[in-house]
Amino acid sequence: MPRIVTVAAAQLGPIARSDSRAMVVERLIAHLREAKRMGCDLVVFPELALTTFFPRWFMTDQAEIDSFFERRMPGPETQPLFDEARRLGLGFYLGYAELVEENGVVSHFNTAILVDRNGQIIGKYRKVHLPGHREHEPWRRFQHLEKRYFDLSDTGFPVWRAFGGILGMCICNDRRWPETYRVMGLQGAEMILLGYNTPVHNPPAPDHDALSLHHNTLVMQAGAYQNGSWVVGVAKAGSEEGVPMIAGTQIIAPSGMTVAATRGEGDELAVAACDLDACTTYKSTTFNFAAHRMPQHYGLITERKGAEPPP
Amino acid sequence: MPRIVTVAAAQLGPIARSDSRAMVVERLIAHLREAKRMGCDLVVFPELALTTFFPRWFMTDQAEIDSFFERRMPGPETQPLFDEARRLGLGFYLGYAELVEENGVVSHFNTAILVDRNGQIIGKYRKVHLPGHREHEPWRRFQHLEKRYFDLSDTGFPVWRAFGGILGMCICNDRRWPETYRVMGLQGAEMILLGYNTPVHNPPAPDHDALSLHHNTLVMQAGAYQNGSWVVGVAKAGSEEGVPMIAGTQIIAPSGMTVAATRGEGDELAVAACDLDACTTYKSTTFNFAAHRMPQHYGLITERKGAEPPP
Repeated sequence: MPRIVTVAAAQLGPIARSDSRAMVVERLIAHLREAKRMGCDLVVFPELALTTFFPRWFMTDQAEIDSFFERRMPGPETQPLFDEARRLGLGFYLGYAELVEENGVVSHFNTAILVDRNGQIIGKYRKVHLPGHREHEPWRRFQHLEKRYFDLSDTGFPVWRAFGGILGMCICNDRRWPETYRVMGLQGAEMILLGYNTPVHNPPAPDHDALSLHHNTLVMQAGAYQNGSWVVGVAKAGSEEGVPMIAGTQIIAPSGMTVAATRGEGDELAVAACDLDACTTYKSTTFNFAAHRMPQHYGLITERKGAEPPP
Repeated sequence: MPRIVTVAAAQLGPIARSDSRAMVVERLIAHLREAKRMGCDLVVFPELALTTFFPRWFMTDQAEIDSFFERRMPGPETQPLFDEARRLGLGFYLGYAELVEENGVVSHFNTAILVDRNGQIIGKYRKVHLPGHREHEPWRRFQHLEKRYFDLSDTGFPVWRAFGGILGMCICNDRRWPETYRVMGLQGAEMILLGYNTPVHNPPAPDHDALSLHHNTLVMQAGAYQNGSWVVGVAKAGSEEGVPMIAGTQIIAPSGMTVAATRGEGDELAVAACDLDACTTYKSTTFNFAAHRMPQHYGLITERKGAEPPP
């Protein structure tokens, strides 16, 4: 029995700060319907898919900040998305800003959920690698305040048995870190879903805007190949509130080859029928971890956070 | 003061089983001279650069096996290489099969050394990720018996202060494993030298010969970018004893971009003036490990060797 999961990488164009949740959910639902028409099982939306990418602004009014967060999922504005997905029999990955209040303590996470064909949330992931900075840095053309607005992950990188295989999730900057894929690969992940919001220009980084798309493809292809896993990477793209963001939405096979990609920077699907058994050919040969990994020589990876040059 | 190391990636074409060490050393010396003419500081030779890639044959006569190994470095046949390098003021990386006898115990390693401009060996690395298999598998068109002929590394992945920077070494299959680069990156490596012998066709792996060069470039570019390090990858290329091997020799900048490459499959240099300070732009921003790594979520990487799917 072949294990085929037909996936839609559901890229979004920009979302304006003034756009309502209802407007965005309508666009997500349009994606669901087109994905259904194309025979999909699973639709992957971007990171923080319900609003504009708000960490680009320094804000001090907590109520204003919290207005970008969801207190319930589904909530009144997102219920129609769940309803339509269930009606169509589609699963989905959705990134959003999650506000949790427990015992009077409020936490904020950059979160992704995996929803099955019945509209049930079967997996939740909270972003591990928060990029950017904590304090206002007015010299930047725009801020990247994820370290300010989000709490540290308490989930790590779990995987889930779903859609006939083993699925994992991560978010945006996570994809640049080989540890992300490896921790899921060591749990047998066959498909890794991820959404991102990536400005073309990364202010403190080298002046290499022209390489942003190359880096995006490079890290996702390497993560796929080195773990014998599918990777589905989905952008919020285009110029959002004056900040150009990369597109580069793509579906990558366990061979490390991109097999579907968007062509533009707006709302657009890239679709592929992903054979989960294609993972085995890599997981059982070159990347047979049990045969070839040498963890006795990897100690520094967990012992050390920062780099320490020799004396 | 800019820290420029001009490097020659000194690709070799095939070496026949009947070729003598003296014949090979002549070719290495020709590379040294051309590298000197092009203003180089450092020459990087392939893995097991002194002989044909002998793990492709199943042999039971230990004397025959040992004939591919060096008992001294430099030895009588390799001394001219060291002499010429010292005369020219060039450093080099050399891969070779190393036989060590200590207290009556004989060990065999797949080894690389780093030699300074004075002909002194300043670093030794023994291959961590031995690919292939241990037993004769006659169904293969050719064998890949590294696990049979070589002992496990006792060096791990050290780095050395040399040539004005921090240099690390690895060998062939090591380059496919992100752990290799990361362990060196966590020690501040600014340039990683590696040689390889990679058959186009990897018998038990998927029938993806056409992807061999893509995978080679993919893993080395990812390792460079994700650690903000130069990577110098050098092939023994061409059809050796009837086995076609990939070329793909290249020098990769910390941006993950290839900045020099060979064009053929014979003896050929790819040369680049490598600015070690170009590492800083990545090591201090996107890949500022101290700011962004999250080792508390990486535990499985060292706790677990093989993949263990969830129940």
